[in-house]
Amino acid sequence: MLNQLFQKLENHYSEMVDIRRYLHQHPELSFKEVNTAKYIADFYRDLGVDFREGVGGNGIVAKVKGANPGKTIALRADFDALPINEETGLPFQSLNPGVMHACGHDGHTATLLTLAKSIFELKDQLSGEYVFIHQHAEEYAPGGAIEMIKDGCLEGVDVIFGTHLWATVPFGVITTKSGPIMAAADRFEIVIQGSGGHGAQPHKTKDSVVIGSQVVASLQQIVSRRVNPIDSAVLSIGSFMADNAFNVIADTAKLIGTVRTFNEDVRDQIEEEMEKVVKGVCDMWGASYEYNFDRGYPAVVNHHEETEFLKDCARNVPEILQVEEAEPEMGGEDFAYYLQHVKGSFFFTGAKPEGIEPPYPHHHPKFDFDEKSMLIAAKTLGHAALSYQEAPSVEEQSAVKK
Amino acid sequence: MLNQLFQKLENHYSEMVDIRRYLHQHPELSFKEVNTAKYIADFYRDLGVDFREGVGGNGIVAKVKGANPGKTIALRADFDALPINEETGLPFQSLNPGVMHACGHDGHTATLLTLAKSIFELKDQLSGEYVFIHQHAEEYAPGGAIEMIKDGCLEGVDVIFGTHLWATVPFGVITTKSGPIMAAADRFEIVIQGSGGHGAQPHKTKDSVVIGSQVVASLQQIVSRRVNPIDSAVLSIGSFMADNAFNVIADTAKLIGTVRTFNEDVRDQIEEEMEKVVKGVCDMWGASYEYNFDRGYPAVVNHHEETEFLKDCARNVPEILQVEEAEPEMGGEDFAYYLQHVKGSFFFTGAKPEGIEPPYPHHHPKFDFDEKSMLIAAKTLGHAALSYQEAPSVEEQSAVKK
Amino acid sequence: MLNQLFQKLENHYSEMVDIRRYLHQHPELSFKEVNTAKYIADFYRDLGVDFREGVGGNGIVAKVKGANPGKTIALRADFDALPINEETGLPFQSLNPGVMHACGHDGHTATLLTLAKSIFELKDQLSGEYVFIHQHAEEYAPGGAIEMIKDGCLEGVDVIFGTHLWATVPFGVITTKSGPIMAAADRFEIVIQGSGGHGAQPHKTKDSVVIGSQVVASLQQIVSRRVNPIDSAVLSIGSFMADNAFNVIADTAKLIGTVRTFNEDVRDQIEEEMEKVVKGVCDMWGASYEYNFDRGYPAVVNHHEETEFLKDCARNVPEILQVEEAEPEMGGEDFAYYLQHVKGSFFFTGAKPEGIEPPYPHHHPKFDFDEKSMLIAAKTLGHAALSYQEAPSVEEQSAVKK
Amino acid sequence: MLNQLFQKLENHYSEMVDIRRYLHQHPELSFKEVNTAKYIADFYRDLGVDFREGVGGNGIVAKVKGANPGKTIALRADFDALPINEETGLPFQSLNPGVMHACGHDGHTATLLTLAKSIFELKDQLSGEYVFIHQHAEEYAPGGAIEMIKDGCLEGVDVIFGTHLWATVPFGVITTKSGPIMAAADRFEIVIQGSGGHGAQPHKTKDSVVIGSQVVASLQQIVSRRVNPIDSAVLSIGSFMADNAFNVIADTAKLIGTVRTFNEDVRDQIEEEMEKVVKGVCDMWGASYEYNFDRGYPAVVNHHEETEFLKDCARNVPEILQVEEAEPEMGGEDFAYYLQHVKGSFFFTGAKPEGIEPPYPHHHPKFDFDEKSMLIAAKTLGHAALSYQEAPSVEEQSAVKK
Repeated sequence: MLNQLFQKLENHYSEMVDIRRYLHQHPELSFKEVNTAKYIADFYRDLGVDFREGVGGNGIVAKVKGANPGKTIALRADFDALPINEETGLPFQSLNPGVMHACGHDGHTATLLTLAKSIFELKDQLSGEYVFIHQHAEEYAPGGAIEMIKDGCLEGVDVIFGTHLWATVPFGVITTKSGPIMAAADRFEIVIQGSGGHGAQPHKTKDSVVIGSQVVASLQQIVSRRVNPIDSAVLSIGSFMADNAFNVIADTAKLIGTVRTFNEDVRDQIEEEMEKVVKGVCDMWGASYEYNFDRGYPAVVNHHEETEFLKDCARNVPEILQVEEAEPEMGGEDFAYYLQHVKGSFFFTGAKPEGIEPPYPHHHPKFDFDEKSMLIAAKTLGHAALSYQEAPSVEEQSAVKK
Repeated sequence: MLNQLFQKLENHYSEMVDIRRYLHQHPELSFKEVNTAKYIADFYRDLGVDFREGVGGNGIVAKVKGANPGKTIALRADFDALPINEETGLPFQSLNPGVMHACGHDGHTATLLTLAKSIFELKDQLSGEYVFIHQHAEEYAPGGAIEMIKDGCLEGVDVIFGTHLWATVPFGVITTKSGPIMAAADRFEIVIQGSGGHGAQPHKTKDSVVIGSQVVASLQQIVSRRVNPIDSAVLSIGSFMADNAFNVIADTAKLIGTVRTFNEDVRDQIEEEMEKVVKGVCDMWGASYEYNFDRGYPAVVNHHEETEFLKDCARNVPEILQVEEAEPEMGGEDFAYYLQHVKGSFFFTGAKPEGIEPPYPHHHPKFDFDEKSMLIAAKTLGHAALSYQEAPSVEEQSAVKK
Repeated sequence: MLNQLFQKLENHYSEMVDIRRYLHQHPELSFKEVNTAKYIADFYRDLGVDFREGVGGNGIVAKVKGANPGKTIALRADFDALPINEETGLPFQSLNPGVMHACGHDGHTATLLTLAKSIFELKDQLSGEYVFIHQHAEEYAPGGAIEMIKDGCLEGVDVIFGTHLWATVPFGVITTKSGPIMAAADRFEIVIQGSGGHGAQPHKTKDSVVIGSQVVASLQQIVSRRVNPIDSAVLSIGSFMADNAFNVIADTAKLIGTVRTFNEDVRDQIEEEMEKVVKGVCDMWGASYEYNFDRGYPAVVNHHEETEFLKDCARNVPEILQVEEAEPEMGGEDFAYYLQHVKGSFFFTGAKPEGIEPPYPHHHPKFDFDEKSMLIAAKTLGHAALSYQEAPSVEEQSAVKK
Repeated sequence: MLNQLFQKLENHYSEMVDIRRYLHQHPELSFKEVNTAKYIADFYRDLGVDFREGVGGNGIVAKVKGANPGKTIALRADFDALPINEETGLPFQSLNPGVMHACGHDGHTATLLTLAKSIFELKDQLSGEYVFIHQHAEEYAPGGAIEMIKDGCLEGVDVIFGTHLWATVPFGVITTKSGPIMAAADRFEIVIQGSGGHGAQPHKTKDSVVIGSQVVASLQQIVSRRVNPIDSAVLSIGSFMADNAFNVIADTAKLIGTVRTFNEDVRDQIEEEMEKVVKGVCDMWGASYEYNFDRGYPAVVNHHEETEFLKDCARNVPEILQVEEAEPEMGGEDFAYYLQHVKGSFFFTGAKPEGIEPPYPHHHPKFDFDEKSMLIAAKTLGHAALSYQEAPSVEEQSAVKK
């Protein structure tokens, strides 16, 4: 059966490339992906696959039912683009100036459509049900996933898998890990309200530059002293702004930064500890403050059994040379929300283009990836989807034991 | 003789007011006071007083020789205005938009011209020589004093006196002190050159916000730990600029501030210690830096004997109700340079206008002063000038003793 | 075969308990375990097992050769005790006042001796060779492992396994993880040499309390800013000593602390960065310093394949209810050195005694463990040892693929 | 009259030296100066001078009334010694082991007794009344002055003068200044109560070393940012104690230090600001603290008119070569309390011994002073006492003016 699936995917590979290139030429920004959604819908309509449009916004969910009963497996691809002016010079470069598929979502969509088509073609021999989640708006918080989940895209789903084509991982390599694989990415803003005055008369002021500097130094101790050293956490202040004449003492200072964590408890703890630090320093000076902590996506936390399962599948895909333990990435991804509802795993598919060293990173105007990685991604996802029907559930495993 | 001088000044008071108001209507910026200089020159020319134009720029120096030999006493007034748009609504408001005599230099000039006229009228009964230094460009470093001194304005001078009409000191009060009365005012700029990067990857960066904050905190310890606690010093950072996105770690941070001191050794020490601090913090991080310390005017340091002498004179001026010990002012004044070359003293003449509480501070668009303070200033300066002929010199005093 | 082994271990269980209790009554301090070593040697001598005494100190290495060729598997147990005065009140309490087996090494030794006996009894049916490493001096750096390895205890060894009975993990649970499982534990000492003086004259001193405080604050930033957030690290200063009269400024300050890491690169990096920080702060003040960084045991880093293999074995041990992912422990263990030379894995065997909640921690005068955990440890180690003969090597696995 | 006084003092000089040497041989500690008090009382009794014993403790107050009415002038000398073991090798070295007149109080007493005798001898020609205050316990807070004042030693007194023989000021020089001349000297103690734990688990602790270090750094900003830069202030932490094993996080840290100020408002401000700082830092960490601020002597603040008057007197003493503006001293002196009740002035009489360069400082076991300085001190005090009868009071001066 797997061989048949792999064969079909190989046969559809040139169509996969065509889809990707068409999408690449017609990128649309997050929450505005109307034509892309229509394109996807048309694809399923033409095939005769059952689907639902407008799921939680521009999302589309297609379903293929196998001949026999079984588990319900979801696969997800995102389809929004970025506000970047493309500079690749590719023949299929963006026709939409200032907008670019600079993160590979065009490839994700081409992969998932072709895989859906292949599975649809094999449905009479399959068990269970296959759910293809085409998600809009991954690039821009609050993202599309939350609304799609609210709109039922995970109903009845037993497990979900997703991948990101990754241009800095070598072609032929898959990386993933169980547990946290991508961080929660939050944003904070602290405004110190001291009391300004003449630079020669500090005693009549509450010096916001000095207060702000103490806040910066004291915040460092949250990561070094208050967070469990086993947990990873980052607290970075990108911006410190107090713009005054040389002989004026600052009235206010504004600090803006980011917090990255892999664990919700640590995230909660840091949000809370930060306020204690800011308050303590400001109290010391009789200054006041505003503190806002805006949550971005939570951490992507892979389920252990599903990740081990996925690695095993990946090892069986002939083009995959190596399955490696991923280093957790500090960037965010709203696939996180799916994994809060159902079991599953997220992995990186090596897509480093040939002959460019080092490759352009994601979100770069010259970003590109090796299109053959789409075939690898499709085979791995397809293998996982089909084989999961046979995987003993964790509940069963435990049952055996006790 | 003093009575005659005081009488003459009273007689010329209305002319003094006219001069002040004319100048107030025709303010000119530092180093551009061409017409004001011409006005002063015309005044002396009309009187028949010997004078020199273009001294060290737009400066003018007039001299009146008494009938008998004696000491040479210099009196100084400044005559430049500020880039401020006047909002007083006075009938003699500035006719030069955006430029205003908001610091009382119009009054200083009217005072000195009228005093010069009165002394000129009494010259046949006087001993010694009287030098009237009309200085341009006090408001804008490097100021006019340095160049006027280079151009010989202090040649042969035994002593110099000067005053500032001071709108926040009550009318009828004179304040001064021996030793430092106005601070040296310097400006510094520190650019931290770390190495930026993604907010989630601090270990690949040298975080200029953290480095800059440590610099701010460490600089505080110069004043608290390294400067002799008997010496006053201020080190304030007005501006801390590191303007980045929330998820970016700062490449550079720029700190701008001021140092105020009353003592050249402390000034030198702070300049030097600051670099040690900046270097130490940057070395700790492997970051680099630029450090500039730009010197403004030095401290105005009154000579002890001349200041005691001046206080005694002031106590004899009938309109003066109180002679008080001045609190040192943290602002700068290039009268400092004269006192580095000859003995002398600088004092504040109370000029608080009636009926406005609190008075508008100097450099405010609504700044004004009580014009009658000009008469007090003229009498005090005139008394000091004439009486200094009789003052035993410090050298003589010591001689008596040993 | 496994069943036979398990059966034998069960049969020898009461002897295992006897051995443990005998050793518990006769504890000896690290590097002084002469009688314990003799006891172990006698055990093997009586059995007729081949062994070597005095390996790298008081160490003993016994070997059992199977009938058929195969891999060489090492198992390790430590046998030193602690300078603690026992307060358990057990009938077999320590007879050596001030010395106590408060960490379970008595149990480790009883486990390994009994397992060795069982394997010896089955040797005619076994393949490969079994090496029983009885290590002295685990509790006290530099430990016994380094010298035993130098003395050849790992010669010809393909893989090593070891366990720690762990009183805070529930009975019936095994925890382990691949990668770092126990931290490197280092000690540092920083002496700040400023220049003391009278508390009223800071400007004549280099204040070691202020300098030391800046060092403490700046060291915090190594963990928060310079170490990869994915890597765990701890830097704690336990002692800050500057003992002077209230009106004296400190000449010196002494800081003593510990660094914990799981990764040699991070360990090297922290050692180096710390000196940069100390030097930077001291330079800022013109102070000098001494800095010593004394390395304790490195991190115990489990090999991935061997750890997965061990988990599989553990799941087959009937008494084991749960195999869990271990949280890395911040404490040190010189099993680390073996894993730097050969593949292998270290795991915790749940040994929480019944009826005491919470259990007394290791190194506590009332520490005890559930003796039945020794049987579980023996079965798991024995299973791993015998089954590893059949485990495909990693090299073979890769070969299959490429 | 002055000439007569000076002549008498010269005649009594050898007695003055004898008295000093006797006292030097028989030093007594603060609050235990029973025999010294008796010695002083005997002196006055023998002379027939009216005196009171046991004033506020061991204090003695003698009074000489002139023939004519006039002002009441007080002169004060202290007479306690220090717990120091003398090492001068002088022929009149201390006979009381471990106790030494290492601060010149023996000289103060000899000076005042001889001056009292001289004035007593001239009383028929004098106006006013002369009060000789012999104070016990200057070296040890709370000092003798408070109790002597409570016990009426200043009743009816118009003015008070006092001096300190000063071994680091050249012989022949008098230094003083109006305003603050010696600092208030206070002691504080801060105990940080965090929560200790294992060095590898900072997240379970509140690290008192880190908290204490932040307190140290933040306290620095009180002097640099919150105190008026015109005011001198010192805040020094002499002792930072947190004594733990290297791998333990500190439960508590104790900071002990001193604050020096010249102005009661600044003193109050610092006491208050310090608590704000300590509280702010501790709140930040959820730690608690104890804070004690124990006040020592207040600043010695010389009255302006009396100080100018005293300088004029000093200039008339033939042996005085120079009257200099004193640098304020950061050490304490309970003469401060007298000046809180009556007008007056305190000055330093240069007493540097010949041939020793640099001179041993006060409180040194080899401390000595030039005995001829006692004659200078006596003449200056005597001149001030007699001439003050003629000094126009400040009230009169103001009356003249207004």
